[in-house]
Amino acid sequence: METERRESAGTGLLSEEGIELKKAKILLDSVKRLLRKQAKSHLKRLLNKRHPADVAYIMKHLSERERKEVLQLLEPEMAAQVLIKLDSLSLAEILELIEPEELAEYMKYMPPDEAINIIDVLPKEKKQSVMKLIEQYPEIWKLLQYGEETAGRIMSTDFVALDEDLTVEEAIKKVREAREKEVFYIYVVDKEGRLVGVVSLRQLILSDPHKKLKEIMNPDVIYVTVDTDQEEVARIVQKYDLLAVPVVDKDKKLVGIVTTDDVIDIIIEEATEDIYKMVGTTDEELWEKSLIKIALYRLPWLSFTIIGEMISGAIIKMYQHTLKEFIAISFFLPLVMALGGNVGNQSQTIMVRALATGRIDPDKPWKVMFRQIGVGFIMGLIAGTVAGLVVYLIQHNYHLALAISISLLLSMTITATVGSIVPIIFKKLNIDPALPSGPFISTFSDILGNLIYLSLATFLLVKFGK
Amino acid sequence: METERRESAGTGLLSEEGIELKKAKILLDSVKRLLRKQAKSHLKRLLNKRHPADVAYIMKHLSERERKEVLQLLEPEMAAQVLIKLDSLSLAEILELIEPEELAEYMKYMPPDEAINIIDVLPKEKKQSVMKLIEQYPEIWKLLQYGEETAGRIMSTDFVALDEDLTVEEAIKKVREAREKEVFYIYVVDKEGRLVGVVSLRQLILSDPHKKLKEIMNPDVIYVTVDTDQEEVARIVQKYDLLAVPVVDKDKKLVGIVTTDDVIDIIIEEATEDIYKMVGTTDEELWEKSLIKIALYRLPWLSFTIIGEMISGAIIKMYQHTLKEFIAISFFLPLVMALGGNVGNQSQTIMVRALATGRIDPDKPWKVMFRQIGVGFIMGLIAGTVAGLVVYLIQHNYHLALAISISLLLSMTITATVGSIVPIIFKKLNIDPALPSGPFISTFSDILGNLIYLSLATFLLVKFGK
Repeated sequence: METERRESAGTGLLSEEGIELKKAKILLDSVKRLLRKQAKSHLKRLLNKRHPADVAYIMKHLSERERKEVLQLLEPEMAAQVLIKLDSLSLAEILELIEPEELAEYMKYMPPDEAINIIDVLPKEKKQSVMKLIEQYPEIWKLLQYGEETAGRIMSTDFVALDEDLTVEEAIKKVREAREKEVFYIYVVDKEGRLVGVVSLRQLILSDPHKKLKEIMNPDVIYVTVDTDQEEVARIVQKYDLLAVPVVDKDKKLVGIVTTDDVIDIIIEEATEDIYKMVGTTDEELWEKSLIKIALYRLPWLSFTIIGEMISGAIIKMYQHTLKEFIAISFFLPLVMALGGNVGNQSQTIMVRALATGRIDPDKPWKVMFRQIGVGFIMGLIAGTVAGLVVYLIQHNYHLALAISISLLLSMTITATVGSIVPIIFKKLNIDPALPSGPFISTFSDILGNLIYLSLATFLLVKFGK
Repeated sequence: METERRESAGTGLLSEEGIELKKAKILLDSVKRLLRKQAKSHLKRLLNKRHPADVAYIMKHLSERERKEVLQLLEPEMAAQVLIKLDSLSLAEILELIEPEELAEYMKYMPPDEAINIIDVLPKEKKQSVMKLIEQYPEIWKLLQYGEETAGRIMSTDFVALDEDLTVEEAIKKVREAREKEVFYIYVVDKEGRLVGVVSLRQLILSDPHKKLKEIMNPDVIYVTVDTDQEEVARIVQKYDLLAVPVVDKDKKLVGIVTTDDVIDIIIEEATEDIYKMVGTTDEELWEKSLIKIALYRLPWLSFTIIGEMISGAIIKMYQHTLKEFIAISFFLPLVMALGGNVGNQSQTIMVRALATGRIDPDKPWKVMFRQIGVGFIMGLIAGTVAGLVVYLIQHNYHLALAISISLLLSMTITATVGSIVPIIFKKLNIDPALPSGPFISTFSDILGNLIYLSLATFLLVKFGK
C-alpha cells in the first residue's frame, strides 16, 4: 500500500471518482491484513505517516480488539490528532479503550479547545479523573473558565499577533519564526495586547518593507468576544466570508481565534441539535450508552403526547353517542387527525429552519407566515375536496362527506397558522424556536381535528340525519 | 454614522456584546433616515464604502420602494456583491426589482459560480432573457456545462497556479502580481496544466528563494474532480480541515477551487434540504411565489397520507362491530396512533441525520439500530404501563387496559424498528435516506397501531368480556 501510494504521489493524482473514499477503503483493508499478520512494525510505520483524518476513518471501521492494537501503535501526537478527527459517536466508543492517564498524555498534544471537546464526551467518573490529571495544563483551564458554546470555549490559541510598531520586514521575519502551523491573518496589537488591526500574509509580502504594520493594516477588524455564542460566531464568519475571526476578552485583548474548520463543525452540530429537537429528542442519544437515559431524554415529550392524546380521547368520549349511532364517523378520525398534523408540521419546520438560518427576520415574519397559512388553506381545500368525494363514494352519506371536507379545510388552515406563528412567538420570547415541533403540532392537531370534526359531524348528522 | 464609525475605527473595536448586529441596526436606521430626507449623494457615499454583507443586511430590511432607491445608488460592482450576499428568500424578492439588462451588467462583476446561483433563483422567463444576455460571458458558460450540485458548478476560477519549474523567488513575484484577491494556497502544475502539488504562502516565504517549486511542494494534494457531488466536496474539506480544495477536469488539469465559504453554504443548504424533505416538502417553498406551486410540491406526500389514512380507517371499519359494542375502545385510538408515530419519527430522524453527517457507517449500522429498537421498546414499556394504568382508572376495564398496554408496547417497538431500518435500506439502494420521514412513519404507525389495538381489543373484550 505504502508503495502504491508513493508511486501515485509523483502526480498526487488518481483517476477514479470518489478517490478519497476509495483510497481510505484500500488503506483500511491493508491495515486489517497487517493486523491479522501481526506485522506490527510495518503497521506502525504505515499508520504514523498518514493524515490523522485517514487514521480516524480506519479506527471508526475496526473492531474493538483491532482498535486497541492500533491505539498502541500510534505515537501520542498522532493518537491525539486521530481522537480530534473522530465523530462523537466513534469517539465515545474509542475513549472507553483509553485509560485516563493515557488520555491526559494525549491531551498534551491537542489544541486546548479540542481537548475540551473530548472531555465533554467522557462519562462522569472518567471525566473527573482526567480533569484531575490535566490540572497542570494551564491552556485547557484557561478555556474552561468560559461558558459552554461560547467563542472562548471553542477558540484556538494558535495565532500570530504582532506589535503595531513593527516594520513589515520585521513582521515577515517573525512570521518565519512563528511556531504556528497555519497563518491566515496576522493580527496587529498595541502595547497592551489590544487588537487594533489585521494584515493578510499576502498584503505583508506586497508592502514596502520599511512601513510599519499600523500603516498597512486594516483597522476595521471584525471580531467577537470570549462570551459570544458559538452560533453567532458561525454567523459572522459566514456573513463576512472570513477564514478566521479573532476573539477578544473584556479588556479587548486578543486571546484567540476561531477558524473556519471550527465553524463548519458548529454549523453541522447546531443543525443536528435542531433536527433532533424537532422530533423531541437530543443528539446526546448518539453517544449515551444507557438506553434508560435515552428514554429519559425523550420522556418530557412522551408525557406531553400521552396527556394530549388523552384529551383527544376525552373529546371522542364527549361525542360517544353520536359515534355509537353513526359508527362511520370513526372511520375518518385517522384522516382528520393525520392531515392537520402533517401540514402543521410542515409550516412549523419551514419557520423554525428559516429562523435558524436567518432567512426570516423575526421582526418581519408576516410575508412568509401568510404564505404558509395560504398554503395550509389550499392544502385543506385539496384534501377536503378529495376526501369529501371519496367519503361520499364509499359511504353515500352527503352530510358525513361535508363534515369531513369542512373539518379538513378548517383544521389544516388552523394548524398551518399555529405552526407558523408559534416559532415566531418563541423567538420573540427568546426561547429556542426549534421546539419539538413534531410531537407538539401532532398532538395539537389531534385535539383540534377531533373537536372540529366530531362537533360538525354531530351537528350535521344528528340535525339533518343521513 | 460614517463619522461615528471612523472614530471607532482607530481601535476597530466597540465594547458591546452582539456588536456586529448592533452596528448593522444603527446603519439600517441611518439609511432609512437618509432615504426619508432624500439625501441621495450622502447615502450613495455611505453605502458604497460598506462591506457588501452589511448592505445586503440593509436591503433585506427595507421596503420595496426603499430597495429600488438603494439599488439605483449602488455602483454595479457593489450591487453585484450585495446580490451574492443575500439569502435566497430576499434575493428572489430583490431580483424582481432588477431588469434583465441590469442584472446581466452586474454579473460581469460576479464570480461565475455566484452568477449561476443567481440565475438558478430567477423565474423561467427572466432566466431565459438573462441567459441570452450573458451569452458573451464565457466564464459562466464554462461552469454551466457541469451538472447541478457538482464541484464544477460551484468552483471559483480565482486561484493561483504556477509552473513546477519556477523558482521560489519567481513564484513570490508572481503572487505579488496576481490579480486574485485572496491567496490561500499556490497550486503547482506541470507544463500541461495538470495539478502536481501544492505550496502554502507561508511555506513559500520560508523557502530558499533559488529552489524550484517542485522541490518544495507537497505532492500529496487532496483534490476533487469537476463532477464530484458538492456534498462529497464539503465532506472532504471538513475531513482534512482544508481552506480550499482544488478541482480538476478529466485530464487532471486544474480548473478551479472550492473554498470554505462555499463549503459552509453547501452544508447549511444540504441540512435545510434534509429538514424540509423530512416533513414532505422542499426548500424551494421559500422563494416560490405561487402558493399553488408550493401546494404541488407537497402533493405527493399529501396523497400518500390520504391513501394511508383511508386504509387506517378501513381497519376501523373492519372492527366496527366491536367498536359499537365497546365504544370506549375508540377513546384511545388517538393515543395508540400518536405514540407509535412519535417514537418511529424519532428513530428515523436519528438515523437519517446520523447517516447524513457520516456518524453511522451504512455497512455497520447495527449498533445504533439495535439501540434505537431498544429505546423504542423501553418507551413502549413506559407508555404502555402508564397508559394502561390510566385507562384502568378511568374505564375500570381490565381487558381494555391490557389491550392498550400491549398495543403500545408492540406498536412503539415496531415503529422504532421500521424507523431505524428504512433509512439504512434506502441508503443501501442509493436512494436519499432523507425521505419524508414524518408523513411516512406517522401513516405507517396509524395503520399498524389501529390493526394491533383493534384486533387485540376485539380478542380480549369479545372473548373475555369486560
